[in-house]
Amino acid sequence: MISDSRVAKCIRGYLDLDAQWLVVSAGEHSKCLQQAAGLWDELCRLKADRNTAVLAVGGGMIGDLGGFVAATYLRGLPFFSLPTSLLAMLDAAVGGKTAIDIEGGKNLVGAFYPALAVAIDTELLDSLPEPEWSSGMAEAIKHGILSGGELWKTIGRLSPGRLQDKDERQRFVEEAVSLKLFVVEQDPYEKTGERAKLNLGHTLGHALEWCSNYRLGHGEAVALGLLAAVRLSRSLGHLEQDFESELVSILRRWSLPTSLPVLDGVEWSWERIAEALGRDKKVDSGAWKFILPAKPGAVSFTAVSEVDLVRKIVDSLKVAPEV
Amino acid sequence: MISDSRVAKCIRGYLDLDAQWLVVSAGEHSKCLQQAAGLWDELCRLKADRNTAVLAVGGGMIGDLGGFVAATYLRGLPFFSLPTSLLAMLDAAVGGKTAIDIEGGKNLVGAFYPALAVAIDTELLDSLPEPEWSSGMAEAIKHGILSGGELWKTIGRLSPGRLQDKDERQRFVEEAVSLKLFVVEQDPYEKTGERAKLNLGHTLGHALEWCSNYRLGHGEAVALGLLAAVRLSRSLGHLEQDFESELVSILRRWSLPTSLPVLDGVEWSWERIAEALGRDKKVDSGAWKFILPAKPGAVSFTAVSEVDLVRKIVDSLKVAPEV
Repeated sequence: MISDSRVAKCIRGYLDLDAQWLVVSAGEHSKCLQQAAGLWDELCRLKADRNTAVLAVGGGMIGDLGGFVAATYLRGLPFFSLPTSLLAMLDAAVGGKTAIDIEGGKNLVGAFYPALAVAIDTELLDSLPEPEWSSGMAEAIKHGILSGGELWKTIGRLSPGRLQDKDERQRFVEEAVSLKLFVVEQDPYEKTGERAKLNLGHTLGHALEWCSNYRLGHGEAVALGLLAAVRLSRSLGHLEQDFESELVSILRRWSLPTSLPVLDGVEWSWERIAEALGRDKKVDSGAWKFILPAKPGAVSFTAVSEVDLVRKIVDSLKVAPEV
Repeated sequence: MISDSRVAKCIRGYLDLDAQWLVVSAGEHSKCLQQAAGLWDELCRLKADRNTAVLAVGGGMIGDLGGFVAATYLRGLPFFSLPTSLLAMLDAAVGGKTAIDIEGGKNLVGAFYPALAVAIDTELLDSLPEPEWSSGMAEAIKHGILSGGELWKTIGRLSPGRLQDKDERQRFVEEAVSLKLFVVEQDPYEKTGERAKLNLGHTLGHALEWCSNYRLGHGEAVALGLLAAVRLSRSLGHLEQDFESELVSILRRWSLPTSLPVLDGVEWSWERIAEALGRDKKVDSGAWKFILPAKPGAVSFTAVSEVDLVRKIVDSLKVAPEV
């Protein structure tokens, strides 16, 4: 079992398995080479062989880190995943992307290594802390924009109160996971561009996270990235249906930011953001490649070379929208 | 280009390509996490994207390290290999195994990541230092034992003098590479056991290398591993055709060791060797799994739980054979 200190404390009772627990400290900062190296050493100490199964138990960070360690130890151990956060259930645990962060950027080192099975138990969400719901919903809102149709309608209808209902919650998670699976199955290794659409809101989102030294949460960063994507699409004349006010109201319903928050020690400097954008893996030889929506259900890749325009959009995030 | 200091010096003239050179220091010690991390950082600094091709130019160490870095940066960059040593041409560059060493053992962390193309130019061997020929021949002798038949006859016939002949050399490399490809294609991810047979001589070989802190070369270690495999097979009554004296004479012809060499600061302590054997990835829940030959052309997996017997065989390597 690979888990983090916060999750391991809560879940040992639920998971009555005879297994070794390898526990790292909670937080995105653990998704690093030092922790991966520590886990490799532990596997070595435990004399893990190619039949040793690794089960990642936790949120997205643990799935990414545990998956990368499982993918690379002895060139691949059997890997299973038990996501415990909404974000990990809907997104991180499904689709085989594993990664660690390096100094230069988020998720820059990793492997495509799908879990042999992902067990999703929405009852685990009963103990999910409030901010984690928001974080998961940010990915769900992204799924909604990508898919349009029923899922976008569901997102528009959902509220924190309704998600307390267990059946509603279960149906919603199934719907959102199905969308992710559908996209991943079309393009598992991100070769055709289909899968890369899941990075909607992430190009800028990752840059903001990195720029804040991970003090801005992933969900918050994605929320701002989605808003920026709508605005950039409008500025470039690609927006067929303006859904910014709808998006803003959904983000607010989930206490997600609609403007760059004031964080101690974080300056939202354009130079740093531009540097991070340059390093993001979605950059394709030259121009920035953004995924921009035309409307819910229709997004496409757009090479954007207008640096000033992107800067203007990022600047617009400094002020709360009036809607 | 990922290369080492020794190779890069010789080959820059041969390779007239407009590319960035990332050069690590020569030697097995560079096949480590620190060097991998340094190369990831360099790729980040160079703003590598998913279209950035990585070409590993060097011996087995560079192929393994460069391949691992290419396999994991952005979850996989296009990877090509130009092996410059006989060992890398015959073995390391072919078949997609990439790896780094960690403190606990050799090749413990890695990925299956075949090069998109491997360019083998036997003219490069003109400048290969003497000990490197021996090292490559150790793997070739292993291929010969695995395949038996024509390749084993070729190995019996070859001498350092004959390999100076360019046509002979070319034919021989083609023959040995074909055997490796044939085996790998049957079982690319080492699932059925077919491919794992290529580890003949490596179970003990890796342990000896690790135990000597890599002062014993890979080829030397494999040579001793092959000899031990024949002796262990005989002791267990599995040897149908005793080819030890033939093997000893072939190893000597290529200046490969037939007994454990005296190396400054290296004690061939059974405790350390047994510890390393325990950590080797070929260990399958309990007993040591050795690949043992019945005769050239017939090898099989054998679970060996007789610790004393293995110790006796390792002890026998302390004395030069009389044949």
